[in-house]
Amino acid sequence: MRVFMPDLPPFHDLKLEGVTPVFYSRDSIPEGGADGMVLWFLPPAGRRELLNRPGLKWLLTLTAGIDHVVNELPAGVALYNANPLHDRAVAQHALALMLCAGRGLHRFRDAQHAQSWSKAGHMHTLEGCRVTVWGYGHIGKLLEAMLEPLGASVAGLTSRSTVQEVDAALKQTDDLVLLLPRTPATRHILNAERLALLPESAWVYNLGRGELIDPDALNAALEAGTLSGAALDVTDPEPLPVGSPLWARENVIITPHVASTTDDLTARGAAHAAAVIQALQAGQQAPGKVDTSRGY
Amino acid sequence: MRVFMPDLPPFHDLKLEGVTPVFYSRDSIPEGGADGMVLWFLPPAGRRELLNRPGLKWLLTLTAGIDHVVNELPAGVALYNANPLHDRAVAQHALALMLCAGRGLHRFRDAQHAQSWSKAGHMHTLEGCRVTVWGYGHIGKLLEAMLEPLGASVAGLTSRSTVQEVDAALKQTDDLVLLLPRTPATRHILNAERLALLPESAWVYNLGRGELIDPDALNAALEAGTLSGAALDVTDPEPLPVGSPLWARENVIITPHVASTTDDLTARGAAHAAAVIQALQAGQQAPGKVDTSRGY
Repeated sequence: MRVFMPDLPPFHDLKLEGVTPVFYSRDSIPEGGADGMVLWFLPPAGRRELLNRPGLKWLLTLTAGIDHVVNELPAGVALYNANPLHDRAVAQHALALMLCAGRGLHRFRDAQHAQSWSKAGHMHTLEGCRVTVWGYGHIGKLLEAMLEPLGASVAGLTSRSTVQEVDAALKQTDDLVLLLPRTPATRHILNAERLALLPESAWVYNLGRGELIDPDALNAALEAGTLSGAALDVTDPEPLPVGSPLWARENVIITPHVASTTDDLTARGAAHAAAVIQALQAGQQAPGKVDTSRGY
Repeated sequence: MRVFMPDLPPFHDLKLEGVTPVFYSRDSIPEGGADGMVLWFLPPAGRRELLNRPGLKWLLTLTAGIDHVVNELPAGVALYNANPLHDRAVAQHALALMLCAGRGLHRFRDAQHAQSWSKAGHMHTLEGCRVTVWGYGHIGKLLEAMLEPLGASVAGLTSRSTVQEVDAALKQTDDLVLLLPRTPATRHILNAERLALLPESAWVYNLGRGELIDPDALNAALEAGTLSGAALDVTDPEPLPVGSPLWARENVIITPHVASTTDDLTARGAAHAAAVIQALQAGQQAPGKVDTSRGY
């Protein structure tokens, strides 16, 4: 089996029996075809070129989201994503952001630069906190288990929740965590009307996709004080451009799309790819098969 | 029963039957004696004056630590502290600092001020993290329960752990959380020799007392890179003075002794005081009785 693979050390180290790796990088697109492809860190042009090589039967993207490939996939190519690679880290990153906001760590960091022992500002714990997870799947369940010993409760919303269910949940929300995928239906799903349903004391956390939030509505709510703050690991556009008003807000916390990043992410990605390839070689069901008709 | 009480709104609202509150503040020390005293937010001079009024039978300090009063207590005055008021918040603050360090939120905050979408720097989750809690009591147990769903393990050390136990634990520590009280025996308990036992990748979290750490040894270890970072909610001296090298280190996170602070802390303190006073009135065992011979 020939497999296009990222030209990174942990993938070179795999040495899978019956697999001939064909390495690519953004600067070096190999010739010829392959049976499968492990996709990571490849810009669109190279990605499209390799995806359309003859004989390709499967694509494993080592991301959680598939919006970058779902519309480029040639007919008959099976698609796998890599949720298990990201789920636990994303849940911990969400918890980190919620505790950072509640304990005011972002403000204390600012005060530290001024060498100021300042106790000013609101502080709370997550005890009694009503958390709404919009996009309640595996990450949401992990997060819920992490929040339980802190005394917070979780309400889950999914893409199948009704408008009435969404509106009712938002009104009873202290912390809103967005984990939805990017689809046509989720674009600007958190708009001005829905932001207005949140209590003024609420915070919004986006670890899904930047496009879930209407950025003008978010800025307006923060400016008006009808929303207490936002922590954003994803933005629209991304990277967040210099000059965006979000950068400069005290009550906005920005992390650069790193929710699932760990020092060993590449090694974990290679191990995950090996497991998927071995399952495919054995004719077994491989983890992360995507129903592309659902778009996520 | 006459009780000295802080001149703060939630204490005025208590209206306890059989209790005559006598309010004090830093600017207004009342005349006369009282049967008991609820101590909070009072500088040493006023504190000493009220503590030595005739007839005082008990003192409730609404702090967790008692080092500010244990050596000033007149003979025969029973001492109560207020651990339950602080435990849950301190455990959450410790978890917040550990996740902040692991996810690099302090560095991302710095990058945010530069409007830089920078992914540089180490990142990990707490999965597999070996946490040593030095001063393993009620807060440590709460923290352990919070860390369990994140995949971290906790080893506990107490003031009764042997030197061998301490040294062995420090060598196997990713995150060291200090929760010890201030006593003569705990001063600079984390010194150069013990810091050298920690792995270079370790972080130290101090939510106990600033005096637990030898500040010169801490600075030297951070400067030499033999310690990855420190998050300090308590310092020595406190407030941390302008010009301390700790303020300016990227890998030091400072919070100004707020681990147990929440917006409703004063209200929670008044409710706790009411519960203690009612138990004392009823002749029942009140929570938080301190064995002053142990010094904490």
